[in-house]
Amino acid sequence: MRLTRRYSFSASHRLHAGVLSDAENESLFGKCNNPFGHGHNYVLEVSVTGEPDGFAGMVVPRGKLDDFVGRTALDRIDHADLNNDVKELREIVPTTENLSLLVHRWLNSAWDAEFGDDGARLDRVRIEETARNSCEVTG
Amino acid sequence: MRLTRRYSFSASHRLHAGVLSDAENESLFGKCNNPFGHGHNYVLEVSVTGEPDGFAGMVVPRGKLDDFVGRTALDRIDHADLNNDVKELREIVPTTENLSLLVHRWLNSAWDAEFGDDGARLDRVRIEETARNSCEVTG
Amino acid sequence: MRLTRRYSFSASHRLHAGVLSDAENESLFGKCNNPFGHGHNYVLEVSVTGEPDGFAGMVVPRGKLDDFVGRTALDRIDHADLNNDVKELREIVPTTENLSLLVHRWLNSAWDAEFGDDGARLDRVRIEETARNSCEVTG
Amino acid sequence: MRLTRRYSFSASHRLHAGVLSDAENESLFGKCNNPFGHGHNYVLEVSVTGEPDGFAGMVVPRGKLDDFVGRTALDRIDHADLNNDVKELREIVPTTENLSLLVHRWLNSAWDAEFGDDGARLDRVRIEETARNSCEVTG
Amino acid sequence: MRLTRRYSFSASHRLHAGVLSDAENESLFGKCNNPFGHGHNYVLEVSVTGEPDGFAGMVVPRGKLDDFVGRTALDRIDHADLNNDVKELREIVPTTENLSLLVHRWLNSAWDAEFGDDGARLDRVRIEETARNSCEVTG
Amino acid sequence: MRLTRRYSFSASHRLHAGVLSDAENESLFGKCNNPFGHGHNYVLEVSVTGEPDGFAGMVVPRGKLDDFVGRTALDRIDHADLNNDVKELREIVPTTENLSLLVHRWLNSAWDAEFGDDGARLDRVRIEETARNSCEVTG
Repeated sequence: MRLTRRYSFSASHRLHAGVLSDAENESLFGKCNNPFGHGHNYVLEVSVTGEPDGFAGMVVPRGKLDDFVGRTALDRIDHADLNNDVKELREIVPTTENLSLLVHRWLNSAWDAEFGDDGARLDRVRIEETARNSCEVTG
Repeated sequence: MRLTRRYSFSASHRLHAGVLSDAENESLFGKCNNPFGHGHNYVLEVSVTGEPDGFAGMVVPRGKLDDFVGRTALDRIDHADLNNDVKELREIVPTTENLSLLVHRWLNSAWDAEFGDDGARLDRVRIEETARNSCEVTG
Repeated sequence: MRLTRRYSFSASHRLHAGVLSDAENESLFGKCNNPFGHGHNYVLEVSVTGEPDGFAGMVVPRGKLDDFVGRTALDRIDHADLNNDVKELREIVPTTENLSLLVHRWLNSAWDAEFGDDGARLDRVRIEETARNSCEVTG
Repeated sequence: MRLTRRYSFSASHRLHAGVLSDAENESLFGKCNNPFGHGHNYVLEVSVTGEPDGFAGMVVPRGKLDDFVGRTALDRIDHADLNNDVKELREIVPTTENLSLLVHRWLNSAWDAEFGDDGARLDRVRIEETARNSCEVTG
Repeated sequence: MRLTRRYSFSASHRLHAGVLSDAENESLFGKCNNPFGHGHNYVLEVSVTGEPDGFAGMVVPRGKLDDFVGRTALDRIDHADLNNDVKELREIVPTTENLSLLVHRWLNSAWDAEFGDDGARLDRVRIEETARNSCEVTG
Repeated sequence: MRLTRRYSFSASHRLHAGVLSDAENESLFGKCNNPFGHGHNYVLEVSVTGEPDGFAGMVVPRGKLDDFVGRTALDRIDHADLNNDVKELREIVPTTENLSLLVHRWLNSAWDAEFGDDGARLDRVRIEETARNSCEVTG
């Protein structure tokens, strides 16, 4: 059984790879390489597998999960500029792929301390950048 | 190959665990524990795996599946109060998790009698309570 | 210029008119007349007309409007049973029409005390009960 | 009769009023005042009134309108930073209100030269910043 | 007060004006002029103004309106080819504009016989052809 | 890690199996068997698995994938009549199942020549015919 919570956040970013020339960056990233950046209303989905406990019928308490995702991930990226405000993204390009890997790493590394006793496992992190573009990290 | 049909239903419920105190219920379920309940426009997705038959090109006839899901599940929960109208939910908390397990059990236990000869297998039941909260049971 | 804020709330209700017989109620309201009620994820839109002030560029400060709508309307209907929890709806049928009129009345009667100095006028209250059914009160 | 075309664009911005102190800015705009900005997937709707011509049955040719909106508005704001890339927004706060007024002004001032002979009139510009926040300019 | 009901239908069409040359048709309608046609999941919204009656709290009974719209409009265009199945569209181009005018005409001309005694007036017919393209007829 | 791109296309079709009688066709396909066909706004999702490359942070360059899906699939089915314009669907029924299999076959057979060096693998093709009906082919 898999429970999924859906969150949203707004952020700006610029796709620009330091190791590439300006012409290569523009060719590869197109408008996403514009110098002052742009932004998105992102969607973040966090999926958890487990069994509902016998008395409350929940894989994981909603409030506990929301609070954890807020502290561990959303507070760092909501209403932020990904290139400037998120130190892990200063040296790498803030694509949906890299952002998904980062959010998964944040949640995964803090997971056991928080949910180790609940038997609920982090199953998937999915980020939607636009209706046309999304990325999932499983495990 | 997996075919998914999407249905909707409206229902009310109250999250309240009989074995917990009032204070524990309120702390765990928050506003969902309000005494007279509240409700949702739920989404139910039923996924079926199989191969399209050679002449009609369908994993399962649409009308047959819709009729089955209607009789077996939707008729019991649409425009219902889950706590009072669904006898299987009288003793357990009608969370998205427990509701998903129940609908999966209903469909699964009647599946073979209905679709045993079609080669179509029930693959997944997914229920969306709100845009923020959903649950899947696979198998 | 018109600014619109969109909110959501979950509530349960039962459509049943005291002056009608059971058969008339069932004929008129169908499944919405089921004895234990059902529920919806409602959407509430509040539209405000005015001119953006010269320094902050807003028709009305977002936080002030959200706080006002929360206190004046959402707190009374979110995660509530409309028939039992909202005293104004105890004697009338909680249709989308009556609910829209009520929310408009709540907001309108408290509007001037709150926004009289801002030059922002309440323009429209719109409630969506399901994707298929919505109602607007203007003025 | 009113025809509406719906477009989307992605942009970043920061809400900050030069005439206010830092504390006032933070109090008024909250997270939207974060120093490095954030961004959104915006929706732009352009509505046109008129009568369908007798042979093609259109209030205005789709391609002509899309090309006009692209040249006149979207090219200036899509994948842009509103504060830095749009000169009209350098001195005013790029709220949904001010952005809607600006896009309306752009389209309106170039309208007659383009559509004066078609009998189609610009009726409304609507911008959605998020699902929760939108603004319309009519006329 | 305005009540809006939202319906959907699927139809195919080809945009081709008999009085234009093939080259003009292709230039004007682009891919929509492809010889064998294409299709859409259309949305139809019907808006009604009036006051809720005193006992049931509805501007118009839902079932009565749905039945009327089904008989008068949807039955003629759902799962149909607009160019071939709808005789009123055989001589004119089935654009969203012309289709909206036709549906409005159908509903409007039968309205009084059906709703004359209810005090409910037809206010608006809106058709969405795609998420990018919609048309409204008011009155 | 899985990246998903979402595209849309509009097409018409008629569900009719040559080996069945008219009565059987009507019974099996209902309104979808209407003689002149109907149509849909389809959604096509293409999912790719792989690792983001070290410098640009993408599983696969967006532009390259979009161009490939356009040339290989969308150009053949967008604004087309599936029964008449797509030769592979002339002898089989253009259900969501058969269309999904076909698009998957198109993409899969041309994949290695295009993406063999990128390490990105085609993971899933998903087609949504309506909000109620979708189909996925994995592998």
